[in-house]
Amino acid sequence: MDHLRRTGQLRRRMTRAGLPGLLVTHLPDLRYLCGFTGSSAALAVTRRAARLFTDGRYKTQAAEEVETARVQIISGSPQVAAVEWLAAQAGVDSAGFDPNWTTVAELDRWKRALPSRVRRGFFSALAAPLVEALRLVKDEDELALMTDAASVGCRLFEHMLGFIRPGLKETEVAAELEYQARLKGAEGMSFETIVASGVRSALPHGRATQNPLPRRGFLTLDFGVILKGYCSDMTRTVYLGKPGDQERNAYAAVLEAQESAVGAVGSGVSCGDVDEAARRVLRDAGLAEAFSHSTGHGVGLEIHESPRIGAGQTTRLLPGMVVTIEPGVYLAGKFGIRIEDMVAVTRTGGQVLTPAPKALIEL
Amino acid sequence: MDHLRRTGQLRRRMTRAGLPGLLVTHLPDLRYLCGFTGSSAALAVTRRAARLFTDGRYKTQAAEEVETARVQIISGSPQVAAVEWLAAQAGVDSAGFDPNWTTVAELDRWKRALPSRVRRGFFSALAAPLVEALRLVKDEDELALMTDAASVGCRLFEHMLGFIRPGLKETEVAAELEYQARLKGAEGMSFETIVASGVRSALPHGRATQNPLPRRGFLTLDFGVILKGYCSDMTRTVYLGKPGDQERNAYAAVLEAQESAVGAVGSGVSCGDVDEAARRVLRDAGLAEAFSHSTGHGVGLEIHESPRIGAGQTTRLLPGMVVTIEPGVYLAGKFGIRIEDMVAVTRTGGQVLTPAPKALIEL
Repeated sequence: MDHLRRTGQLRRRMTRAGLPGLLVTHLPDLRYLCGFTGSSAALAVTRRAARLFTDGRYKTQAAEEVETARVQIISGSPQVAAVEWLAAQAGVDSAGFDPNWTTVAELDRWKRALPSRVRRGFFSALAAPLVEALRLVKDEDELALMTDAASVGCRLFEHMLGFIRPGLKETEVAAELEYQARLKGAEGMSFETIVASGVRSALPHGRATQNPLPRRGFLTLDFGVILKGYCSDMTRTVYLGKPGDQERNAYAAVLEAQESAVGAVGSGVSCGDVDEAARRVLRDAGLAEAFSHSTGHGVGLEIHESPRIGAGQTTRLLPGMVVTIEPGVYLAGKFGIRIEDMVAVTRTGGQVLTPAPKALIEL
Repeated sequence: MDHLRRTGQLRRRMTRAGLPGLLVTHLPDLRYLCGFTGSSAALAVTRRAARLFTDGRYKTQAAEEVETARVQIISGSPQVAAVEWLAAQAGVDSAGFDPNWTTVAELDRWKRALPSRVRRGFFSALAAPLVEALRLVKDEDELALMTDAASVGCRLFEHMLGFIRPGLKETEVAAELEYQARLKGAEGMSFETIVASGVRSALPHGRATQNPLPRRGFLTLDFGVILKGYCSDMTRTVYLGKPGDQERNAYAAVLEAQESAVGAVGSGVSCGDVDEAARRVLRDAGLAEAFSHSTGHGVGLEIHESPRIGAGQTTRLLPGMVVTIEPGVYLAGKFGIRIEDMVAVTRTGGQVLTPAPKALIEL
């Protein structure tokens, strides 16, 4: 990862925003900027220097991971130490922070840590958070890692096709999937694995339960791995037994909606237009009401990032963004279906990172 | 879970604090109060009514899970809907919120959602968050679930003793542990499993890597499961091969420190005194510097809760609190050792919920 280049980009944005200082406390932002992967730290950046504050638990780890910032091990709050350091730097009379990742209590503590002569107006909530803006567009190193993570997801799905059979508990399906993920190198799952079968497939976020897989019915698997920090995310819905006409038609509609939205992805296209590409198909199929969430979201170091692919969203896609496309329909008491790919925006359209089969599979 | 009783307790505290309204947005707080387990919601509580706002994805689930609040499905932000509802209730001219779980951006959005006539002074940051105070002391239902979760942890450790052997990758150890956790009913792990062997055991938070377990050296396993929403947390450090004198002595010191702190747990004892009970032993053993973190933390619906068992902490333990006791020593480039139990505070002392063996195990 080219942390030096990222820090350079950040500094140019700080200059443009007229900010002499920046306080970075959201851990994925920290990791993005300097490579630190621990669970407690704060990074202070000025136009000349960057310093990472963390505690004794991470002394060895921080020394190994961080090259582009000086590391200082402290015993109290890393955030407060970072605030004190920032305020002591020559020429730093104000600092930005990301209001989406700063609690009211934290901001209060930071202000109290400032010398009274600079307290007023020192901190400014960034209307357009600078690190988030950088992270929105993935660089080549990131795209390579995300392609790998997505590819592990596809191989897991293939494995599961040979494993799934009626009578297995949903939790056994989740256990096998997560076990295989670990063996394929995943550090963990990027969110709680969704295994929802039969009428439970109508729960968009159905946790795996002790329920056995039915002899007949849909089974939705929505899962992702974390590989070298980057998240994958994919969903496939298969059918156990022989589907009836209503089920077949609903699946065909979701698949058409999903492929229509994937086809709409491209540089300069608004997120709202991508959402509409899926929504239109389901509306025409009389399933508008059953599609009860937005079409997708950005993904990267976090499982949910900007942009949101939802109705009316005006953000325009740019090459290097990676988003999910995941329309679904949910008919309470009957069944649910969702199909999801990760798609990287390219100069000429979108590249699907999760090329696992999508035609209706009957098991 | 007796959500009705909890809501009653909350209302008594609201009355005492002079608060006509409360906005609850931290998901574990929400789950504690009304049983909802989804990933997006807000709960508004007045002295007479409680209403849960969530989106269409959770329509069926919310109807199944929530009894003590009315459920309203909305299409925009659940938080904003909750704010608008609160402000429209007769007699509600102010509402509390938890500043530790509210971002600066959220508070700003909430204020903008208020009618201008009530905007000024409507929201007050709670100095002593009301739901956190309730959650600090676990009721009998919770203690039963946490005992179960801790017991699954112990059985996993026993299983792992028969699995661990030199040459296995750390990730294979984590995979097996997490797989068995799922089969034993866990919904997931309560944090990223720590498997750190050989010199890596000196990293207090060492993620499992592709490194093989050494023929000789410490192996630290720090892991927890989530069972019906409640977290377990335990650490054991075993030795592969025959330990030398320095290793044996360090282990004995950590074990003595850990048992000393467990023995210090009791109703009315300050958290700082429990921490000191462990720290004193390691100081006397010349290992003060090597014990680079605090002794423990509360645990429950979340893996890290109040209180913190650290130096100088004045919070006094009460029956029903559940805390971890986990001193450790870390010698960079050599080895590390940590031993951790979950302990429930009782009227007469502390009850260890993780009674797995702690004498040094050589594998």
